[in-house]
Amino acid sequence: MTATLPPGLTAAQFHAALKAFEGIVDAEGLVVSEEEIAGFRDPFAHASWREFAPSAALQPTSVEQVQAIVRAANEHRVPLWTSSQGRNNGYGGPAPRVAGSVALNLRRMNRVLEIDEESAFALVEPGVRFFDLYDAIKASGAKLWMSVPDLSWGSIVGNTCDHGFGYTPYGDHVASQCGMEVVLPDGELLRTGMGAMSGTRAWQVYKRGFGPSLDGLFMQSSLGIVTKMGMWLMPTPECYIPGWLTIAREDDLPLLLEALRPLLIDGTIPNQPMIINAVCAASALSGREDWYTGPGVIPEEVVERIAGQPGLGRWVMRFALYGREGIVAQQRAIVERAFAHIEGLELTFSQYAGDALPELANPHERVQAGVPSIELDRMTKWYGGEEGGHIGFSSVAPVTGRDGVALRDLVKGTLEAAGFDYSAVIIASGRAMVHVCLVVFDTKDEAQARGAYAACKSMVEPAAKLGYGEYRAHLDFMDLVAAQYDFGGHASRRLHERIKDALDPNGILSPGKQGVWPARYREG
Amino acid sequence: MTATLPPGLTAAQFHAALKAFEGIVDAEGLVVSEEEIAGFRDPFAHASWREFAPSAALQPTSVEQVQAIVRAANEHRVPLWTSSQGRNNGYGGPAPRVAGSVALNLRRMNRVLEIDEESAFALVEPGVRFFDLYDAIKASGAKLWMSVPDLSWGSIVGNTCDHGFGYTPYGDHVASQCGMEVVLPDGELLRTGMGAMSGTRAWQVYKRGFGPSLDGLFMQSSLGIVTKMGMWLMPTPECYIPGWLTIAREDDLPLLLEALRPLLIDGTIPNQPMIINAVCAASALSGREDWYTGPGVIPEEVVERIAGQPGLGRWVMRFALYGREGIVAQQRAIVERAFAHIEGLELTFSQYAGDALPELANPHERVQAGVPSIELDRMTKWYGGEEGGHIGFSSVAPVTGRDGVALRDLVKGTLEAAGFDYSAVIIASGRAMVHVCLVVFDTKDEAQARGAYAACKSMVEPAAKLGYGEYRAHLDFMDLVAAQYDFGGHASRRLHERIKDALDPNGILSPGKQGVWPARYREG
Repeated sequence: MTATLPPGLTAAQFHAALKAFEGIVDAEGLVVSEEEIAGFRDPFAHASWREFAPSAALQPTSVEQVQAIVRAANEHRVPLWTSSQGRNNGYGGPAPRVAGSVALNLRRMNRVLEIDEESAFALVEPGVRFFDLYDAIKASGAKLWMSVPDLSWGSIVGNTCDHGFGYTPYGDHVASQCGMEVVLPDGELLRTGMGAMSGTRAWQVYKRGFGPSLDGLFMQSSLGIVTKMGMWLMPTPECYIPGWLTIAREDDLPLLLEALRPLLIDGTIPNQPMIINAVCAASALSGREDWYTGPGVIPEEVVERIAGQPGLGRWVMRFALYGREGIVAQQRAIVERAFAHIEGLELTFSQYAGDALPELANPHERVQAGVPSIELDRMTKWYGGEEGGHIGFSSVAPVTGRDGVALRDLVKGTLEAAGFDYSAVIIASGRAMVHVCLVVFDTKDEAQARGAYAACKSMVEPAAKLGYGEYRAHLDFMDLVAAQYDFGGHASRRLHERIKDALDPNGILSPGKQGVWPARYREG
Repeated sequence: MTATLPPGLTAAQFHAALKAFEGIVDAEGLVVSEEEIAGFRDPFAHASWREFAPSAALQPTSVEQVQAIVRAANEHRVPLWTSSQGRNNGYGGPAPRVAGSVALNLRRMNRVLEIDEESAFALVEPGVRFFDLYDAIKASGAKLWMSVPDLSWGSIVGNTCDHGFGYTPYGDHVASQCGMEVVLPDGELLRTGMGAMSGTRAWQVYKRGFGPSLDGLFMQSSLGIVTKMGMWLMPTPECYIPGWLTIAREDDLPLLLEALRPLLIDGTIPNQPMIINAVCAASALSGREDWYTGPGVIPEEVVERIAGQPGLGRWVMRFALYGREGIVAQQRAIVERAFAHIEGLELTFSQYAGDALPELANPHERVQAGVPSIELDRMTKWYGGEEGGHIGFSSVAPVTGRDGVALRDLVKGTLEAAGFDYSAVIIASGRAMVHVCLVVFDTKDEAQARGAYAACKSMVEPAAKLGYGEYRAHLDFMDLVAAQYDFGGHASRRLHERIKDALDPNGILSPGKQGVWPARYREG
């Protein structure tokens, strides 16, 4: 049995709660052994850290079980922390914000409920991984592509609910989501948009309903548990043209961003390009020891050596074009013209038939074709061999040179002062970009791990002063990030709290998620 | 002074409330004369109807005044009904759901606060009309196009908050919205998304913030008053190619929709095509008397005669292509191939340079280029000369032949049985379409007006049985439409009510909007 109890509960009360849960789920559905519970902790947290340790885990298999679980959690005042697959690595994985919470994991609810080729959408349960939907689409024979993140072992619903990205034209997963089913904190079952009408024909084709739209409330949220989600899919394109662009000089990053913005806004580049710095690019292909084994952060001359490798550069941008042959050929020419003024820039393309895609050797090119992979997981092993971990520091900005330089300089300066290599990607999506810094560390090296957490925390306020907020954050600094959203005397936090208290008066659902605390925790 | 009082208020109490409002706004800001108040009633309601008549009107000029007004409304328990320009004609205009509400009209808050050519967006106040932003963009010299509805006298914020459409690739106005400022029912001032961070750089470029997204809560909503809104704009396209497609046979409507759907989903047709039936098309160009003066609904042979006119047909679809010359030329060829199998179909295109648009003679072609116009207002004069009115019956469905036929047959059959001509448009938007029936009547003919209302109401439940919900509704049948959203024992209505009660405990803001009633009205 666990050492950690839910806050405010005695061992006896907790035991009574577990008995109640036991009556709801099957034998696999309740996890209480220390060893198994460890699977619901932060995958990168040091073994000695208990701060975000769950007290038990539940793995229901049906919506009815989820409803019964939240009702029991209300009765016994047990905080639940929802995850789907629990692969939100870099931000805490399946671990709860409040130690002693019961992890509610939905990976056993893993049915692909519908694939509609006509209107190009899927309806999935939260346990469905990107891999699973990919297989289901293939098995169905539908001529549809999906969007996947770099690591496809995660849940589509979980990734989307955390505002995650993929890298096809449908890669803004929140924008591609259409219709949800949600279990509310009191066990009520809700369907959003047109799904609010029984027998609707339009749940997955029209995003809104009659009256206010509720879907946004259930993303990065502790207001409900998403049990079904519609996702739009892309018709298989005639051509798929992944492109690679590298710049030889660090100083040309602003030129790259300035040339990219108009191509994103007018749709010439329709996907979410990822601009990867030299260290990060190297970490996908090799270990740090292949480049540098000396003291301190990786020196400038070594970064230059990495940048000089074929196909790399100070920054390398992956992106892709999709569509009919004659049209993508012209878009390709437009892209070539748009970047031609950048000295030393290299731009290469490959071309594939969308409906006869070969086995692509490059994982980046698989990702942009919506083909699931986990090869890029290697990045986290930069320092730590098999035991590598990372936390993400992910700030949002407009796609401008000025903003790119400001974020790079803040993050690079802070990390290097803390003794970490600057490993970052910029994910561009329409008018916005997210500068994602992968602070990589050896999970066995507690001092280095602590240093990584401290470095991330130390950047939150300086970034806010420059006008940059994080779009997502690790459990360890969710409150600090949320505190930066301060307009109107933190009006948005107060509104989140009012809605939270109205829907979840006992505060049982994911307390502290994204810095939103139920009344009993705020007062306590 | 008004004959109508707010519910539950004595004349003395109402007078005290007006005194409080008088202390907040300037002389023009408080409207109490019967004559002027009439300007805030349903523009098409019969003069004798008091059902949706306001008791007074307020026209603040600043956010601070709006905050003070809602605080006073709480103190005096006066229901407010927000409109921006109040041009939501066909659904009730500026008129409140609850007779005696004070109309809160924002047309005097009409500043274009920002036009950003670099990231292609505008930030506007609720009183800004489509005409106004168009002029401001022209004056700024920015190479940007906006999206406008058929009648551009309305407010951008008002149209967007009611889920309104425009007809460029940015015509799904909710999808083009990015960032809001909102006065909550208690007077708190909120900014959504990245705007929740003071000094943010990303309010209008990234739609989400940290934690749940709130924007959807304030659309079709009584939860707040939107005082600022960001709207994305389209870079001026190299070419603008409006297209016209007509089908000669009513039976080919399903073929048209089936051929259209893939072109919408893959983006070949990037805007929101409007498919207009013969009677509706004729009503934009002529009066009913030009075609038929006999008894009963317009006969089939007359509809055939209209359909036979040059440029018309049983259904005529307006749509457009936008972009670089070489690309739109290929898209045009793809469109031609996609419809080639439909016998008797006619397809024509014009082509213009986006940055040198001539004065377009056809108002439809102006609308699709984002050029404001009100010429299509003529449609409502079908029966009634200058006194024409209409109500909309607007149902959402997937873009399929089956769904198009089912909606057409339901609506046509019901209207003709009630003695009304079937005048309709189908607005297609990606995977969904909205079948909008314009039930046109002579506002001076009370019996005909009553009949129009009755006919719309009578279609709500049969449409729901077929799986079609309305995306918007007239005050007179908002409750009936909302009642069809019944999944989980009306779980979505109960959630709307819980949020409403939490944010607006006195129920002062737009009670009854989209069928959401505050506690004091539900109990009462």
